Amino acid sequence: MSHNTFGHLFRVTTWGESHGPALGCVVDGCPPGLPLTAADIQFWLNRRKPGQSRFVTQRREPDEVKILSGVFEDDRTEGLVTTGAPISLVIDNVDERSKDYDAIRDLYRPGHADYTYDAKYGLRDYRGGGRSSARETAARVAAGAVARRVLGDGVQIRAALVQIGKIAIDRAKWDWNEVENNPFWSPDADAAKQWETLLDETRGAGNSVGAIVEVEATGIPAGWGAPVYAKLDAEIAGALMGINAVKGVEIGAGFAAAALTGVENADEMRAGNDGKPVFLSNAAGGVLGGISTGQPIVARVAIKPTSSILTPRRTIDRSGQNAEVSTKGRHDPCVGIRGAPVVEAMLACVLADAMLRHRGQTGR
Amino acid sequence: MSHNTFGHLFRVTTWGESHGPALGCVVDGCPPGLPLTAADIQFWLNRRKPGQSRFVTQRREPDEVKILSGVFEDDRTEGLVTTGAPISLVIDNVDERSKDYDAIRDLYRPGHADYTYDAKYGLRDYRGGGRSSARETAARVAAGAVARRVLGDGVQIRAALVQIGKIAIDRAKWDWNEVENNPFWSPDADAAKQWETLLDETRGAGNSVGAIVEVEATGIPAGWGAPVYAKLDAEIAGALMGINAVKGVEIGAGFAAAALTGVENADEMRAGNDGKPVFLSNAAGGVLGGISTGQPIVARVAIKPTSSILTPRRTIDRSGQNAEVSTKGRHDPCVGIRGAPVVEAMLACVLADAMLRHRGQTGR
Amino acid sequence: MSHNTFGHLFRVTTWGESHGPALGCVVDGCPPGLPLTAADIQFWLNRRKPGQSRFVTQRREPDEVKILSGVFEDDRTEGLVTTGAPISLVIDNVDERSKDYDAIRDLYRPGHADYTYDAKYGLRDYRGGGRSSARETAARVAAGAVARRVLGDGVQIRAALVQIGKIAIDRAKWDWNEVENNPFWSPDADAAKQWETLLDETRGAGNSVGAIVEVEATGIPAGWGAPVYAKLDAEIAGALMGINAVKGVEIGAGFAAAALTGVENADEMRAGNDGKPVFLSNAAGGVLGGISTGQPIVARVAIKPTSSILTPRRTIDRSGQNAEVSTKGRHDPCVGIRGAPVVEAMLACVLADAMLRHRGQTGR
Amino acid sequence: MSHNTFGHLFRVTTWGESHGPALGCVVDGCPPGLPLTAADIQFWLNRRKPGQSRFVTQRREPDEVKILSGVFEDDRTEGLVTTGAPISLVIDNVDERSKDYDAIRDLYRPGHADYTYDAKYGLRDYRGGGRSSARETAARVAAGAVARRVLGDGVQIRAALVQIGKIAIDRAKWDWNEVENNPFWSPDADAAKQWETLLDETRGAGNSVGAIVEVEATGIPAGWGAPVYAKLDAEIAGALMGINAVKGVEIGAGFAAAALTGVENADEMRAGNDGKPVFLSNAAGGVLGGISTGQPIVARVAIKPTSSILTPRRTIDRSGQNAEVSTKGRHDPCVGIRGAPVVEAMLACVLADAMLRHRGQTGR
Repeated sequence: MSHNTFGHLFRVTTWGESHGPALGCVVDGCPPGLPLTAADIQFWLNRRKPGQSRFVTQRREPDEVKILSGVFEDDRTEGLVTTGAPISLVIDNVDERSKDYDAIRDLYRPGHADYTYDAKYGLRDYRGGGRSSARETAARVAAGAVARRVLGDGVQIRAALVQIGKIAIDRAKWDWNEVENNPFWSPDADAAKQWETLLDETRGAGNSVGAIVEVEATGIPAGWGAPVYAKLDAEIAGALMGINAVKGVEIGAGFAAAALTGVENADEMRAGNDGKPVFLSNAAGGVLGGISTGQPIVARVAIKPTSSILTPRRTIDRSGQNAEVSTKGRHDPCVGIRGAPVVEAMLACVLADAMLRHRGQTGR
Repeated sequence: MSHNTFGHLFRVTTWGESHGPALGCVVDGCPPGLPLTAADIQFWLNRRKPGQSRFVTQRREPDEVKILSGVFEDDRTEGLVTTGAPISLVIDNVDERSKDYDAIRDLYRPGHADYTYDAKYGLRDYRGGGRSSARETAARVAAGAVARRVLGDGVQIRAALVQIGKIAIDRAKWDWNEVENNPFWSPDADAAKQWETLLDETRGAGNSVGAIVEVEATGIPAGWGAPVYAKLDAEIAGALMGINAVKGVEIGAGFAAAALTGVENADEMRAGNDGKPVFLSNAAGGVLGGISTGQPIVARVAIKPTSSILTPRRTIDRSGQNAEVSTKGRHDPCVGIRGAPVVEAMLACVLADAMLRHRGQTGR
Repeated sequence: MSHNTFGHLFRVTTWGESHGPALGCVVDGCPPGLPLTAADIQFWLNRRKPGQSRFVTQRREPDEVKILSGVFEDDRTEGLVTTGAPISLVIDNVDERSKDYDAIRDLYRPGHADYTYDAKYGLRDYRGGGRSSARETAARVAAGAVARRVLGDGVQIRAALVQIGKIAIDRAKWDWNEVENNPFWSPDADAAKQWETLLDETRGAGNSVGAIVEVEATGIPAGWGAPVYAKLDAEIAGALMGINAVKGVEIGAGFAAAALTGVENADEMRAGNDGKPVFLSNAAGGVLGGISTGQPIVARVAIKPTSSILTPRRTIDRSGQNAEVSTKGRHDPCVGIRGAPVVEAMLACVLADAMLRHRGQTGR
Repeated sequence: MSHNTFGHLFRVTTWGESHGPALGCVVDGCPPGLPLTAADIQFWLNRRKPGQSRFVTQRREPDEVKILSGVFEDDRTEGLVTTGAPISLVIDNVDERSKDYDAIRDLYRPGHADYTYDAKYGLRDYRGGGRSSARETAARVAAGAVARRVLGDGVQIRAALVQIGKIAIDRAKWDWNEVENNPFWSPDADAAKQWETLLDETRGAGNSVGAIVEVEATGIPAGWGAPVYAKLDAEIAGALMGINAVKGVEIGAGFAAAALTGVENADEMRAGNDGKPVFLSNAAGGVLGGISTGQPIVARVAIKPTSSILTPRRTIDRSGQNAEVSTKGRHDPCVGIRGAPVVEAMLACVLADAMLRHRGQTGR
């Protein structure tokens, strides 16, 4: 959580720009002895890869990951396992067309980080946003794949889109299997059809649109997290708000909780068979007092519309003069779609870090 | 952001339980030479103090702060100034009626941290929630007062309630002066009247209700914050979600951004007189790419209804048996009301820390 | 390791000045369920307390510690145990004679932090050195007492003085029991007698003298510590060098290792009965590659002579003019003597933190 | 200072094993706008490169560094400058002969990290020590080159060997220019000749020998560093003790301070022409109370003899059986020689980090 490093015991440091030679991350503090190959990580990277449907950017990036350190052959199984040393992951940039950006070299795109990076650093990497590009999130997905190994098979983390533009899913139709069947991560097949139309129109109009992603983690035991600035929900909120284009995060009932009464919001408990409580609802979204309850952890993030759009917008240039900007290039009409695997990955990293810290303090 | 410590250069460590002898904090990394007296801090604490209207807890706490270290007389002005050493602040607990809690000694209140603390630590400080009590936030407000000194008079941070239960304010009637005139921090006098009725009814029914707090910081220059895990909005989200009972955080347009198009969401820019841009809107809430834009920083948090209510709810006891719980005692019917100064304080701490780190990296 | 906070999972934040109302610390991240009373901590504080012989400062401080948070009655044993919440410890300053310092109000004592604090912070807390006073180490000893609880009874940490001025002990006469029998923490009774004469002479001459403290920790299993910036010996070195007046730290053979050959320096291993190796020597001082070997951890620190002396020394004043300074007051003629319990305490804190992090990463 | 990350604002994360495909580091928090090319870094790497004389390892590594991120063309000068984003540096491993290590695959070399890594992680990367190899220090030297840019041309950091085995230099003959003229970084030409003989004999005998390195930083203003766990000397000690094979660190008079009196140890001050004090000596080594004095910072480290030696030593194998080990391969007979540039680099990193933090807190 300093600069480009995330986490305390399970730590991820990412680096790389949209149009540099490569990007990557160093995953440090990983427990030793966990099986880990490049293919394990590639599986998750492929889910975020651009160019998989006409509704996402057409940049052609294989996003092929290499492991440069931190794994070694296990002398029993002869498979690769983590050694406990830092794991360096690198993904080469292949399809970088920096030329696309010549037109906006001296212009600030409204809603983009162009102006603020320049205000902070006094210079401008105009090629695709440089460090602020969504391309950086590939490194997060790679790190998230390692985090999943740490969490083990008992933990499942999965995301779905629940709204694009003004069109929300019907939660009664929620089907996790459906998420794999459409290019929108929609758990509602009907919503997916409407989104298809919406996105074709949006793209045709040189415009873009926002979205809401919901993520759920199951299999988390009660007790992870800690008061008071290391609350599990605080760390989830920080991690998810830090994803490009996210403007809101909520846990469980979230903003709807403001309109509830204490009677409605109470997740009542009943004695379970295994000594653990059975909760009759999950308004808490799996976290109370900053500590996991044992219920599924449920969070939602609001992702703003892509700020790189074809429709001209008023702006200023680097010399402070009025100008207009229209962004050509291969941009996602709804950056929220490819946000789903990134949301999953960040939640995985938060949870892996919380797991190790909980074990450190309590020995459990 | 580790355990009970918040911040990197401007660092706050809080301690203390609801019903222990005292609570407090250590503020470390404060720049030297800033005027600071106990009265400066007391001013802000008094705004959070319980017992100030019939709509908040009737616990009678003077919340009187003592400065035990980190200030010394300035040999020029003879007033007290910060020395650069850690500032230890202590607030004694005065009106602790632990007896009130005997009835719930072995019961977990639904929606409260009772169960999760026990699951994590294997023990239960039943007196008022112990560390998980909202009383801990007094230490945050004290720290926030120091953070305001660091930020200086050019920065103004103020919060208002924009919704209680299902009743939202009319934003057209927003008047910051009104906030001081009613016990709800409402910027809309009419809403305040409706909330009065709502809260009397809620309390009468042994129930509680949620709220939404909006906070604004003005006077922040462009350039604070940093990619990618130290984004200013990520840190704001983490800090605000870590406040007791908060279940959602949004920046600028927030969740509404999901329904916007890129054309609508773009905060267009025009050349300003001083070389800085004039933004024509603020959907970004003052942060782009994790870095401040120079516009006001605007955030909202959803605060759930108080979980300690008189209406009986189903639960289990520490031995895992079914039970019912009804919480007596002097609880806030809407914990969101006293949340406003806490939200201000946490935002102040985030900004003070971002200011120092920005200065460290860039020299500006 | 930021500002006034030490540690990662077991974290200590200290505060307080020599002549303020109090000093103390917050110990955060302590495992729950460990028995802990003020008396447990007082035992260790008493060993560092001033005024216990004529060879240390005559300031009369009871150094009585209060626990303000983080402990609660265990419902089984009814004794106090740690709760996992931050433990706030406070020690009131009682015998502060600030008047003693009026004479040096505007003078920088050579070898003291007077000048550097002023250079950094632009102000001067002349009363006994303020934050730079050795009095701050009382808080470290209190924290170390908690660290010992974390480490448990299987770990023993003890220090001894092995040199004062030019007079070193005879290591052949080493007797740990002797350490408690003389006011110098000397394991060699004969050396203690010579030191008595030396210190009487030194004090009589208005002078002071340096010392070397050796510390040993036994019962540490193999495996604590981690590459490469979290090496156990690196953390020990940082922790011990950070103690007031320390100018050197060495582990195992230390500086003598420079004159050894690889053949001499190799700690050969033989098969032990329990599967663990038996080491035939301990030139490594219990750490190899930054990770504990299972052998005793052995370190030594060089402590410079007290810089507050009666003999006049040339200096400058705050306005930059030449001056002479002679420090009256009740100073230790050999600050190294009271350094022994501080060295123990810091080693305990390093080890407790390493233990929890090791458990976090590996589950062992 | 967590795991494989060093520093707070100027942060370095290193990764890579001796016999993996590559090693490298990510330098994060670097101020923007500093000129930086691969050639700038290569200059310093070349000084540490193996194979430059018959007195160091004959492994043939070009140690060619690539910059993968964090620099971009400055639109004024068209040269490459830092952007403020993380700088990823990679060095390929070229001459890795893993076969050399087959013989010790199941043996622990005494004095090496073989046993402790296995005890901690439960596995063994036998190829050249894996992460514990001195090869990792190439990444530190690369990071140090960036740190030097941050510090600027006014700061000079240089190291020299002052002792190899039992043969120390004559300090009266100290000549910094001489350091570049011999393969030992010796400031004393006569000592260099004696060391040549010593090392030829040592190598011939299948043995190795220790050394002492002294490092000096000039041009550091008064005021860097901070109480009490972020003391500049504490951070220097931690950073230098964390270098492979270092067993002791001292600042200024160091261990010799133990034998001094307060009168002798006082660095007296006289009024200087520029308002700053002139110190009449530097027993403090440039640090008082953990804060820089403005004098040169002087530290020394003791480096133990290389533990990989040809002479057979008694040990155990991974199954716990007694064995003998003799390490073939291309090892440095005195690892201290190539330690000099690493010591410089770590000191540069500590100082760059202290500089940024000082600026953050005080604005100076």
